[in-house]
Amino acid sequence: MPEPGIVSRLQLSGLCFFLQLLTIVLFAAFVRYSPESSSGLCPQQLNCSWREQDSDFQHPRFRDVHLQALLGFGLLVSFLSRYGLGSVTISILVVAFAVQWAVLIQGFLYSFLNGKIYVGAQSMVSADFCTAAVLISAGAVLGRANPVQMLLLTLLGVTLFTLNEYLLLRLMGVSDSGGSLTVHTFGAYFGLTVSWILRRLHADKRKKQQETGHQSDFFAVVGTIYLWIFWPNFTSATTVRGDAEPWVLLNTYFSLASSTLATFVLLPVLHEENTPQMVQIQDAALANAAVMGMAGEMLVTPFGALVAGFLAGLIPPLAFRFLMPTLSSRLKIQDTCGVHNVHGLPGILGSLLGTLLAALATADAYGGRLELVFPLVAQGSRTASDQAFYQLCALPVTLLLAMLGGCFTGEL
Amino acid sequence: MPEPGIVSRLQLSGLCFFLQLLTIVLFAAFVRYSPESSSGLCPQQLNCSWREQDSDFQHPRFRDVHLQALLGFGLLVSFLSRYGLGSVTISILVVAFAVQWAVLIQGFLYSFLNGKIYVGAQSMVSADFCTAAVLISAGAVLGRANPVQMLLLTLLGVTLFTLNEYLLLRLMGVSDSGGSLTVHTFGAYFGLTVSWILRRLHADKRKKQQETGHQSDFFAVVGTIYLWIFWPNFTSATTVRGDAEPWVLLNTYFSLASSTLATFVLLPVLHEENTPQMVQIQDAALANAAVMGMAGEMLVTPFGALVAGFLAGLIPPLAFRFLMPTLSSRLKIQDTCGVHNVHGLPGILGSLLGTLLAALATADAYGGRLELVFPLVAQGSRTASDQAFYQLCALPVTLLLAMLGGCFTGEL
Amino acid sequence: MPEPGIVSRLQLSGLCFFLQLLTIVLFAAFVRYSPESSSGLCPQQLNCSWREQDSDFQHPRFRDVHLQALLGFGLLVSFLSRYGLGSVTISILVVAFAVQWAVLIQGFLYSFLNGKIYVGAQSMVSADFCTAAVLISAGAVLGRANPVQMLLLTLLGVTLFTLNEYLLLRLMGVSDSGGSLTVHTFGAYFGLTVSWILRRLHADKRKKQQETGHQSDFFAVVGTIYLWIFWPNFTSATTVRGDAEPWVLLNTYFSLASSTLATFVLLPVLHEENTPQMVQIQDAALANAAVMGMAGEMLVTPFGALVAGFLAGLIPPLAFRFLMPTLSSRLKIQDTCGVHNVHGLPGILGSLLGTLLAALATADAYGGRLELVFPLVAQGSRTASDQAFYQLCALPVTLLLAMLGGCFTGEL
Repeated sequence: MPEPGIVSRLQLSGLCFFLQLLTIVLFAAFVRYSPESSSGLCPQQLNCSWREQDSDFQHPRFRDVHLQALLGFGLLVSFLSRYGLGSVTISILVVAFAVQWAVLIQGFLYSFLNGKIYVGAQSMVSADFCTAAVLISAGAVLGRANPVQMLLLTLLGVTLFTLNEYLLLRLMGVSDSGGSLTVHTFGAYFGLTVSWILRRLHADKRKKQQETGHQSDFFAVVGTIYLWIFWPNFTSATTVRGDAEPWVLLNTYFSLASSTLATFVLLPVLHEENTPQMVQIQDAALANAAVMGMAGEMLVTPFGALVAGFLAGLIPPLAFRFLMPTLSSRLKIQDTCGVHNVHGLPGILGSLLGTLLAALATADAYGGRLELVFPLVAQGSRTASDQAFYQLCALPVTLLLAMLGGCFTGEL
Repeated sequence: MPEPGIVSRLQLSGLCFFLQLLTIVLFAAFVRYSPESSSGLCPQQLNCSWREQDSDFQHPRFRDVHLQALLGFGLLVSFLSRYGLGSVTISILVVAFAVQWAVLIQGFLYSFLNGKIYVGAQSMVSADFCTAAVLISAGAVLGRANPVQMLLLTLLGVTLFTLNEYLLLRLMGVSDSGGSLTVHTFGAYFGLTVSWILRRLHADKRKKQQETGHQSDFFAVVGTIYLWIFWPNFTSATTVRGDAEPWVLLNTYFSLASSTLATFVLLPVLHEENTPQMVQIQDAALANAAVMGMAGEMLVTPFGALVAGFLAGLIPPLAFRFLMPTLSSRLKIQDTCGVHNVHGLPGILGSLLGTLLAALATADAYGGRLELVFPLVAQGSRTASDQAFYQLCALPVTLLLAMLGGCFTGEL
Repeated sequence: MPEPGIVSRLQLSGLCFFLQLLTIVLFAAFVRYSPESSSGLCPQQLNCSWREQDSDFQHPRFRDVHLQALLGFGLLVSFLSRYGLGSVTISILVVAFAVQWAVLIQGFLYSFLNGKIYVGAQSMVSADFCTAAVLISAGAVLGRANPVQMLLLTLLGVTLFTLNEYLLLRLMGVSDSGGSLTVHTFGAYFGLTVSWILRRLHADKRKKQQETGHQSDFFAVVGTIYLWIFWPNFTSATTVRGDAEPWVLLNTYFSLASSTLATFVLLPVLHEENTPQMVQIQDAALANAAVMGMAGEMLVTPFGALVAGFLAGLIPPLAFRFLMPTLSSRLKIQDTCGVHNVHGLPGILGSLLGTLLAALATADAYGGRLELVFPLVAQGSRTASDQAFYQLCALPVTLLLAMLGGCFTGEL
């Protein structure tokens, strides 16, 4: 009889082989590159759903794929500062499988045509958004699930993410270009529910392997710089047209600056520290990314971005100080990387802010931009308050789906 | 009576809150995004000052903003190898506040129209140049000023930088696209003067916390690679037109290569080391960036770039060996990160080189490029030697303003 | 009489000075920037050889230079995880000199016109490919050659690389846009032969200074993320046209994902490890880059990319386990960084795959792309099987030249 170590090793090896084989077979059967003259196919694809109609988006810009490919890795780097190098191989396994699986699942939902899925640059961008959400979920259970469980979580997480995204973006016509709801909120609550179920079932007592000292600080420095440099582009890649002023980018950039200052305002009061640690500045940057995901393209004044960023920067310190101990002791939820504080709550704030901004949207304030941000309002098929209502409804829908899905996944 | 630690903590927290509130209020009152059809507003903005007139620059390319946003962080990374992680939170605080303040101050000077400041992608690029200069200044006093003093230094540094830049670029018509004078020289001498005053007043004996060994080396590797990868784009972002050969970029790249070889030539002779340390190779790359800031767009032959890079690479080793001990013992100036050697002196060399090249500028050598590099000469309102005279005058003006401003800031 | 240390120091210093002086003189005599209206000159340049004719490539896009400039550094970062910081200064010296020398040598072969070499953005891209190959060679002898020997290896390596590239791309009309043969295979076998000769001559017993533990893991994380982010762009930069779907990029991306899964399949079986180490995941990514160099632009289906990536991911674990011990004990070849496993063998696989794909190429499958990938086939001057024959012949030519050159260099 083989010892348990060998069994789990072969189990992982076999599962990887099976999943890769499955993906290759499914790709061989269904996935094709979209032909050169792809203008006719693009509207079937995700994320570009409403915007394809105008001529600027006929040919997805392949440089954006490059930038989007960084998305998941930004989160990865930011996890390192909390969790260290121990689980990075697992995270990369999650990324590698999630990308392939997301292309398949999203292809079936969005661009299934004549029995084939036609993929292009935009498919990759969508797959990367999905990977980011799954990685956030993984962050909540890191260290308490084995690689095989992680692969199952990826498999189900990708499927549920795509379902939720399809519901929100396509059926309800919600604007969420940067993924406040679809990526951050869904990812966080899906992961937390799984973490809660795993906790209940296994009652595993392994403590956090959180690394301290210089190495953790170093990863936080790298992560923060990474977020500052690349995040403004993530939120903007799906929305900026070549010839318009990049408001999304500027909004995200301004709010990053003010969220950092918010950390410096709050931390000396909350803790007995003279200056914040790098990991807390990184949390502010991440929380800000979650808030600006939806609101980024809706804000039309720079000072709005400053205020939103300041509020976003206040969330993680308050949540780590007051909310996390409660969660941990009352609900027995262990949140390894603090995803609730830096993704979940800011994502909810972002969606509420988005609702408010949608309700206030007028053709005067947005000008030609209205068609870009709220195409249904611009076309007259919805009023601004209808749009706000849909934006608001998207929040409970996402939470419900994330939690039900999390329960189901956790039980499995 | 509260203990001093709490006082200084609350002081920092309060100052951050006050400054952020002030910025938000000023942004709310004055700052607006420039409307979509912004072609009419662009000439009012900075850095694109002379070049806006030709049609290629009507719409600032938002991708450049992304690249420019890296500027300050490049310096940050390079500081890490000299100073370690200790002060990185302070540096990020400086960056976060400097960006917001620079947008305000530069807006009042350059793009104030009908009581509003209209910001766009170009404003962010300008703000980043300013942030880089302030970060260089901060590098000179790192470890000897507390966070509150750092914020005051940022406040005044940004204001003076903008004044100097306005004087040089707008009033005197000096060409300095990469900031040899405005960023490197101003930043270095402003910081050094503040450092000198602080030294005189407090006579603080705290010694440098310079970290040694592997970690320092590691940061230097990251910093050097960062500079090689991104710096050629910084110097080129404000000057390269879409359809022209990117001479600035090639010049910077060639000179980076030859400045590295210069380090290998000089260091084995000066020191008893077999090969240079990484931090010295990084210094060569930084010095080269300072030299090519002004000269990068003026050089019309690749071998000129090689020679300039070689000279730039010689400065830091010589200055660290012979000049820094003198400065430290005679003038009691403590230069924490060696900004005089890698920014100050190379910046001066760069501006002298720029003067020489401006004097030699002929329509034959530059062709259609003349209008890009020296628009006033191309338009006939100045001769090449007039332009060279202005370039030369810009050096003492910058030095004077930096030192006076430094004295004033230090006294405060 | 001076001690040996001083002699070797002055030798390095003197050689650097001499080489830099030589380069400056040669640049001054021959190298000029290509004039603005450079459309007439471009066809003489490398890598864009066949593609220049269509109008999209008239003006090389300067942004690509930026991306290509990363090429060598990607390898550098990946070496760090195997060899540590010890030799990084030497590697940067190699890069700094190789870039200058490659511009000269390639200029003489490709763009020598009226006694002048006209360089532009494309020259830099070509020089970077060459630098990458030399860096791979350097990886094989790292730790066993002194800096002076490294410079000689660079000098000869660049010259031979250019000769081989000229032979393959220009004379034989082989398609190898990502350098499976010219960069990876040539670099690996040139370096290995030099390593073998050095071994034979000196019988140096210094053991590998391979660093272990956290630092090595950390570099591997950075290296892997770097490869995932930037490599798809390397393979695509020379081939993607603005308005076509970026198949190369998508192929590389898909294959990266499946090569990672292959590592997870194989390693638990081969070794007694539960999960692979980061450095092994990085090897899979590098091997995949070597395979997709040639095949990347030829694959027309996503599942082909998945299969190729899976095979590429299998090579390094198998080679490290079974082949390397044999090589080390039988042939006495010490391969410091394992370049044979991650560059040599995958490069050969890539070229065989390229041959197969060339033989199968039909106008139906490629459509308008055929002219891009196999211009000679599209023009009718060759059949697909002729092209495949040439692709196949390129392999022994490259191996022969690399080994003969390596013997010659090693003896020197």
